[in-house]
Amino acid sequence: MPDNRCVVLAARPDGAPRESDFRVETRPLADVADGQILCRNLYISLDAGFRNWMDEGSGDNVLPAMPLGEPVMGLTMSRVEESRHPDFSEGDILMARFAWEEYTVTDAGDFISPIRNVEYPLNYYLGVLGDTGLSGYFGLTDFGRVQAGETVLVSAAAGAVGSIAGQIAKLMGARTVGISSGAEKCQRLVSELGYDAAIDRQSADLDAAFSNACPDGIDVYFDNVGGPLLERVLDHINEDARILLCGSVATYNETESVPGPSNLFQLTTKHAHMHGFMTHLNLDRYDAARAELASWIADGKLVVHEHRLQGIESVGRAFCDLFAGVNFGKTIVEL
Amino acid sequence: MPDNRCVVLAARPDGAPRESDFRVETRPLADVADGQILCRNLYISLDAGFRNWMDEGSGDNVLPAMPLGEPVMGLTMSRVEESRHPDFSEGDILMARFAWEEYTVTDAGDFISPIRNVEYPLNYYLGVLGDTGLSGYFGLTDFGRVQAGETVLVSAAAGAVGSIAGQIAKLMGARTVGISSGAEKCQRLVSELGYDAAIDRQSADLDAAFSNACPDGIDVYFDNVGGPLLERVLDHINEDARILLCGSVATYNETESVPGPSNLFQLTTKHAHMHGFMTHLNLDRYDAARAELASWIADGKLVVHEHRLQGIESVGRAFCDLFAGVNFGKTIVEL
Repeated sequence: MPDNRCVVLAARPDGAPRESDFRVETRPLADVADGQILCRNLYISLDAGFRNWMDEGSGDNVLPAMPLGEPVMGLTMSRVEESRHPDFSEGDILMARFAWEEYTVTDAGDFISPIRNVEYPLNYYLGVLGDTGLSGYFGLTDFGRVQAGETVLVSAAAGAVGSIAGQIAKLMGARTVGISSGAEKCQRLVSELGYDAAIDRQSADLDAAFSNACPDGIDVYFDNVGGPLLERVLDHINEDARILLCGSVATYNETESVPGPSNLFQLTTKHAHMHGFMTHLNLDRYDAARAELASWIADGKLVVHEHRLQGIESVGRAFCDLFAGVNFGKTIVEL
Repeated sequence: MPDNRCVVLAARPDGAPRESDFRVETRPLADVADGQILCRNLYISLDAGFRNWMDEGSGDNVLPAMPLGEPVMGLTMSRVEESRHPDFSEGDILMARFAWEEYTVTDAGDFISPIRNVEYPLNYYLGVLGDTGLSGYFGLTDFGRVQAGETVLVSAAAGAVGSIAGQIAKLMGARTVGISSGAEKCQRLVSELGYDAAIDRQSADLDAAFSNACPDGIDVYFDNVGGPLLERVLDHINEDARILLCGSVATYNETESVPGPSNLFQLTTKHAHMHGFMTHLNLDRYDAARAELASWIADGKLVVHEHRLQGIESVGRAFCDLFAGVNFGKTIVEL
């Protein structure tokens, strides 16, 4: 049995996570008991949302708070190396909510989504065909009600979810506007991700930037950011606007509670709608959604951007970089 | 032609409205020009939401800001006294967005909903069968998706909208919980309005009060209040919760912007939904909704509470009282 290198939560992040909050440790791998499987983790997905469960007492209906000194929880693509569980066989490929480690021994009671027919590159199952890409897909198809010619605004528009959501909205016939930080990334939103316009959230006059980029107002806001930006957006929504609350990267790191939008009553006067959604609750629809996304990729209608790193030592830094806006597209680490 | 007594906006309210913000004036009534109608206003509805348009620069897609020194805008039940408009005849009964005045001369381009067959007491058309009662009805039927046994929480539960919404939710099979201020009103929520439980928003430990009154969590929140209470409620919502944003009486009077809920991300993790709605956009459905509400009244399933005052001199005070929580049920003034 090989030793298992894993990334443990060395310290609870104080605000934005730092590399020193994570530490690579080598631990002996447990024996595979009856009813368990041993998996080799091939890719680790880096998702800002997991920051939520790194704080003391942060457990909720989705995940318990991560214990200090224990491997950090995340999303992986994994291969079953040994199975003593009736539902799994050696060689099975799984998308799983496993820890940041090279191997996982589990009784398979955790969140595991087997990929019964591997039709696409494995890394796609964490990005465009994984929870991030599918968040863009389900958010827009289930709650976006996007009509041709409507304006769809996407925050963190170059991120793992945003880069896909913007392209899907465009395929649905919308005029798409992306928000990102800095002139260079804004330029790339248009030239590489097909957004019709971009807004630099560092703009001195953000309201004017919204008015310029969204002269007909905002019909759909695909929000990956939350925080103060949402308040600014609410001042520009159209009647019957739909706001899709996918992520809140602006607040994950906050140690103090961040006030919400003071203008939430805009939802009433504009008879608008705000939808929270958790993509992993749609597991039974993943195959069909993946098939549609994959056909768009094959037809060249959907471009995949990936920020890929190598080795377990890269995981902590890759996670920290998510909050520094370094990534363009989906960040994954290949083990 | 009689003189017209009206209530003008004497001063823009600084926070909560005071009686001195309003002044009764007698003005000559304009002649009825071609294309216009003269109406006698029989009842004036008092609605806290109109406070929104009393501030400088408060105009929006619903109404312009009310001009200082001019009659205050409101909702009335009115009878056409003279018509020089092809669509109206003497004797027609209208629900209208008219000013607080005894008579109105208008080119009928404003918001007017004729009651072609007057089947119910006229005062009902401003309360249980008017925008307030219909707000409860449309909010719950369009967006509530109430299932039998679910917990429906109503804020300002004794108010014009809340008193109806709570009873409708109960008729839909829900367990209903009302929020009001003070032990006496809370007692009346249960004994007179049929709520299963009541929460006193003045409770020292509001979280404990929510947990006690809603032991199975909150499935639907019919919100007439907004403000800090919404934040407390979000900590108690169930998965797939629906939050119906009807009114925001807690914020109408604020001169500074009031921070929104810091825990809006609860909507994401609970995959919950927040719906703003404006009842007057459903005019084509008013007749059918009224018929159902009226049948419940006739069957004794829906109890109507009205706080009725007399004369134009009462209007200003009646409006101010809405914010002091004096009313139980719908407030109207009979002219």
